[in-house]
Amino acid sequence: MLKGKQTWTFANKPVILETGVTGGPFEANGEIAGDFDILYSDLWMEQDSYEKAHRHLMEKAVELALEKGKIDKEKVQFFLAGDLINQITPTSFAARTNGIPYFGLFGACSTSMEGLALSAFITNYGGANYVLTGASSHNAAVEKQFRYPTEYGGQKPPTAQWTITGAGVALVAPNGSKQGVFPHIVSATIGKVIDMGLKDPFNMGGAMAPAAVDTILAHFNDTGLTPDDYDLIITGDLGQIGRETAMDLLKQKGCKINQEKFKDCGLMIFKKDQPVMAGGSGAGCSAVVLYGHILNEMIQGKYKKILLVATGALLSPLSVQQKNSIPCIAHAVAIEYGMKS
Amino acid sequence: MLKGKQTWTFANKPVILETGVTGGPFEANGEIAGDFDILYSDLWMEQDSYEKAHRHLMEKAVELALEKGKIDKEKVQFFLAGDLINQITPTSFAARTNGIPYFGLFGACSTSMEGLALSAFITNYGGANYVLTGASSHNAAVEKQFRYPTEYGGQKPPTAQWTITGAGVALVAPNGSKQGVFPHIVSATIGKVIDMGLKDPFNMGGAMAPAAVDTILAHFNDTGLTPDDYDLIITGDLGQIGRETAMDLLKQKGCKINQEKFKDCGLMIFKKDQPVMAGGSGAGCSAVVLYGHILNEMIQGKYKKILLVATGALLSPLSVQQKNSIPCIAHAVAIEYGMKS
Repeated sequence: MLKGKQTWTFANKPVILETGVTGGPFEANGEIAGDFDILYSDLWMEQDSYEKAHRHLMEKAVELALEKGKIDKEKVQFFLAGDLINQITPTSFAARTNGIPYFGLFGACSTSMEGLALSAFITNYGGANYVLTGASSHNAAVEKQFRYPTEYGGQKPPTAQWTITGAGVALVAPNGSKQGVFPHIVSATIGKVIDMGLKDPFNMGGAMAPAAVDTILAHFNDTGLTPDDYDLIITGDLGQIGRETAMDLLKQKGCKINQEKFKDCGLMIFKKDQPVMAGGSGAGCSAVVLYGHILNEMIQGKYKKILLVATGALLSPLSVQQKNSIPCIAHAVAIEYGMKS
Repeated sequence: MLKGKQTWTFANKPVILETGVTGGPFEANGEIAGDFDILYSDLWMEQDSYEKAHRHLMEKAVELALEKGKIDKEKVQFFLAGDLINQITPTSFAARTNGIPYFGLFGACSTSMEGLALSAFITNYGGANYVLTGASSHNAAVEKQFRYPTEYGGQKPPTAQWTITGAGVALVAPNGSKQGVFPHIVSATIGKVIDMGLKDPFNMGGAMAPAAVDTILAHFNDTGLTPDDYDLIITGDLGQIGRETAMDLLKQKGCKINQEKFKDCGLMIFKKDQPVMAGGSGAGCSAVVLYGHILNEMIQGKYKKILLVATGALLSPLSVQQKNSIPCIAHAVAIEYGMKS
């Protein structure tokens, strides 16, 4: 059902039945290492290219979600996923492996919530009994494509962010088992492209902050809710600079969010002493933090209702070379933990 | 409603209210030039790069669809679109221009029907009053990225296809005006990734043919329909070689389709004497042929019910360099012209 112009509310509150979360060596030393299903000790993952390792991360996350959920892949109707690599080949090759009818998505680092919003809409209306959705990134594959091969040892300014290595996948269904307690998808707000004219690809958090704010305000405007209705509002990967900018912009717009309640996936995934500059990023970032860490915390009773606002910078190396500014987007999904009311 | 494993049937039969179709100089000399709303006489379209011209094609198609449909863009809830360029920047920049909440899609040349299927699902269930969906490609931008800049004058084998320059957009709504006669979206079949091991990026029609066949067979299997239920079955851009391969495969599988009824967008867009090798291709190909030419023919009474099977080769230059085979996909959408029954 359409609640506001850009927000869907889901009367049937589809559930996240199970998740699969994979990560790399940097994530293994991170703050939420315990929330991954599998952590690889090197970036190659027994593949002969970083792009194939990237594909493997997604294949494994899908496999794990199905295994943990005890669902045959033949029962899954659709796979909605994407990544940052040109023509999203790691995801498309993973779709070849799992053989599930496939919607390729591109929303840069907002892909995770683009996919979860569509999956919730589809399952809410009986369009599928089971859907898999997710996003992934691989540090060395992404760096090689967007900047330089990591082997060059190029330096970056402190505003830059560290692309995470990992994949997060959710198995979404119209219902959980009877009497079961699950994370339910309550609503989703689809973002517009916002571009404030920033051109520095080494400060994407700053560029993306206005998009996050636009979507957060649209969510509250469309639903009539306020920040008090959520225990946690988590942006995708604004990092240190983007989070501060977003806080300032929200304040300017008269939207008061308690600082303790306003977190960022890019600031949650790594330890403070890891050399990740302004924080983590990458299409996998919000996917692994939500489907790993945050859902675990919800299950442990720490949060009842959250809003995940995944942010994406829709640039390319070529668009930067052609001196374009950075178009950004954010999609928000509200998740409630409990029995279906 | 879910009819079969990978097919949706739309009880409310959403309508294609209006379309916007733009094209380039090669298309202006083509077979269906009269079906474009605007044809540009050169590839630059008053922009300073081919990528910006590519963006402009999509912006203009959106503008035209809204103008012709007499719908303010503020009334349109979602824009679902994509293209072939890295990180689909032409589409994302067009989404910045129109400011409509945006789902970025990547399905290579199958993107048009990926978007139409999702738009139909969304409008069928009241998820939006108006949705815009489409796909585009630009010959020089795509050639530069996937192969060589066209200025090099590189030669190609006769199995290769010619990327079309154009954008096709549809304005989709739950209903048309009362008593109005419109193209209605009846069902959609989402394809799996099919890869028969072909590795030649200069014969993508051959690589994509098995994916088209897989989706066509799934469509008939899921819906219980047969080729006799359609006046026309049109593949996206298999070209000469792919179309023949698809015909052979369908015959092998016991699916008899009259040759006259089985067309291909890549073989409809250009004249026989244009030097396009095995035919047209590109994400814009099925979009402009359907939203321009075929819908016009339906309105003229030539066809009542058609099945458009858009095919996509999900490769990248890097995946080819790494000696991967070509994963392919096809999505099918059934369209019926008439009053809502």
